[in-house]
Amino acid sequence: MEEDPLSALFTPAFVVDVDKAKRNAQRMIERCQKLGVQLRPHMKTHKTLECADIMTGGSQRCIVVSTLAEACFYADHGYDDILYAYSIPFDKVERCAALSERLDLFQILLDHPDALEQLRKRPLKDGRQWHVWLKLDCGNGRAGVLHSEPGALKLAEAIAKTEGVELTGVYAHCGNTYYCTGVEQIQAVAQETTKLTLQFMEKLKAVGITCKSSIGSTPTCSHPVKDMAQLSEVHPGNYVFYDVQQSTIGSCCLEDVAVRVLTRVIGHCPHRNQLLIDCGWAGISLDGAGKLPTGYAVIEGHPNLKLLSMTQEHGRVEPISGQLDYSEYPLGSLLTLIPYHSCATAVMHPVYHVHSEGRLVGKWTPTRGW
Amino acid sequence: MEEDPLSALFTPAFVVDVDKAKRNAQRMIERCQKLGVQLRPHMKTHKTLECADIMTGGSQRCIVVSTLAEACFYADHGYDDILYAYSIPFDKVERCAALSERLDLFQILLDHPDALEQLRKRPLKDGRQWHVWLKLDCGNGRAGVLHSEPGALKLAEAIAKTEGVELTGVYAHCGNTYYCTGVEQIQAVAQETTKLTLQFMEKLKAVGITCKSSIGSTPTCSHPVKDMAQLSEVHPGNYVFYDVQQSTIGSCCLEDVAVRVLTRVIGHCPHRNQLLIDCGWAGISLDGAGKLPTGYAVIEGHPNLKLLSMTQEHGRVEPISGQLDYSEYPLGSLLTLIPYHSCATAVMHPVYHVHSEGRLVGKWTPTRGW
Repeated sequence: MEEDPLSALFTPAFVVDVDKAKRNAQRMIERCQKLGVQLRPHMKTHKTLECADIMTGGSQRCIVVSTLAEACFYADHGYDDILYAYSIPFDKVERCAALSERLDLFQILLDHPDALEQLRKRPLKDGRQWHVWLKLDCGNGRAGVLHSEPGALKLAEAIAKTEGVELTGVYAHCGNTYYCTGVEQIQAVAQETTKLTLQFMEKLKAVGITCKSSIGSTPTCSHPVKDMAQLSEVHPGNYVFYDVQQSTIGSCCLEDVAVRVLTRVIGHCPHRNQLLIDCGWAGISLDGAGKLPTGYAVIEGHPNLKLLSMTQEHGRVEPISGQLDYSEYPLGSLLTLIPYHSCATAVMHPVYHVHSEGRLVGKWTPTRGW
Repeated sequence: MEEDPLSALFTPAFVVDVDKAKRNAQRMIERCQKLGVQLRPHMKTHKTLECADIMTGGSQRCIVVSTLAEACFYADHGYDDILYAYSIPFDKVERCAALSERLDLFQILLDHPDALEQLRKRPLKDGRQWHVWLKLDCGNGRAGVLHSEPGALKLAEAIAKTEGVELTGVYAHCGNTYYCTGVEQIQAVAQETTKLTLQFMEKLKAVGITCKSSIGSTPTCSHPVKDMAQLSEVHPGNYVFYDVQQSTIGSCCLEDVAVRVLTRVIGHCPHRNQLLIDCGWAGISLDGAGKLPTGYAVIEGHPNLKLLSMTQEHGRVEPISGQLDYSEYPLGSLLTLIPYHSCATAVMHPVYHVHSEGRLVGKWTPTRGW
């Protein structure tokens, strides 16, 4: 299938424009270099070796992952300096210890004294240290100890003082940028998260602790504010693919989106003024809840079409206005969906088909599970 | 890990109570025997060999699948009499022809004259016939030629008359039962779909055509009406697992649901009166849109907890009323989610962990892709 056109693919198919992915990755590398901050790209969107290689500029070092399955996958394939940026789950302490003892630099994250106690109970062999980031919640409202809690500083001090454990850094995820529209709002969140993180670093300094700091999210790192230069690292991930959601937030243009789901027309339903495509939620996910003006996705080149609803293997498409002209959409004809959320769509596919200028050049196989 | 308790699993984990699955399957077999109709179980919910064996009572014959990947998977493992119940996609005609030439009985489905033309252009070798079901829409509003359209009868006649093609049957899916609440509503849809299908069979008979008929959906086959005895086959699938949605529709009791997602508490957020679990949408899917009183799932044994929102690997849980007592939910403690839609949840997992009375007895590996 190598060098075949995209139309040679069986559908539904998840396709990656490798030139766009490389361009998105290169832009982020340059943006971080210019800012003077270390880029630690997140692997959770794609979970493949090939894309990791692109995002790390070939270094295969300094990455962040969302699951221990990803951590093991990358470790097994020569990657190192891996941050498992997920409040350490107690069932996985032993597997984390094994990675810590095996890699040059495996880093974990926590936000609760009970997690520190788990590490204390499992000292690493050969005098190795647990490398621990403290997860701080600077307004995101998910994981992390709240920046304003007195407990946050206490926990940082406890980590720093614990034998066999090193406080490597302070980590904040600004996922609250996903509620933004436009660069101004994104940068307001970036500024606030940076400010709160740096204030916390000052509090640490005042008690004699120095360590790294990192914030992340594709929106903030696509439009960084200059104070972010005072951070040690940033950790965005989605940017290598981008998606409709990111274009709506203002992180990118729709033209920057590197991924698509190819689908074919499999049904005409003139009595409902609809057509059916061979992509249901098993091929694109339910993310976005169909709230785009064009429903669950953007149908490239057909601004009047809406992906209205889906079942497992069927998508219902209808015109936003007027009557469908079925002669434009014969059975078997291809349509191209731009995903609302590329992380959610990628997860549905056991293989990604990679193309350059519309010619297939390879396949990427993601890791799955936990 | 065999014979270990469920708590030995890393989370999130998709678990199947094999005794409940067997009981659900056996009840459907008996229900269909009593009704005098052939059960052709659908594989799309689980996509595993082991569960197919349970649903076919070990015969490994007479199944229905939703993707060609499933068809090939089952064919490669000794299954036969496989119906690929999906309006034949034009990119997959050649693969369907290969299966038709290889198996004793591979059956396809169509709902458009252009699809018949595709078959005409690809005659099967060795004088074999394409075995074709006509997909009829009896009110479901997805695929199928509308039962009342004059074109439906014409298409049936065209199939029957085409050399190298056999009209095997008429197939209607009553997915519109998913909008029902209670047995009475389910049986009204079952009655209507059966009536319309049988009326169509009469029209066929009047022009000298006899063939099989089949309707399906887990709700109608869990509560069949007696006229369904006049059909040749039924083709439900979800019933082997069931789920919260099916219990809400009235297909089953919550106690009949054979699958769970095990998850662990990974965060306490007292400032938001929430806790975090290690199951996000990557572990349970976004199906149901969080509209249950308990959000995206039912949290077994904790009727006051709601799975409020999710990101890829995090779930936010909060009490429906009152304040969380975090001492009841220490970090690392297990919670058990009953999925809203087991088809959507199963698809997120590369392996299913199978237990009998809480002891792990094996793993099932589903097929994926298309």
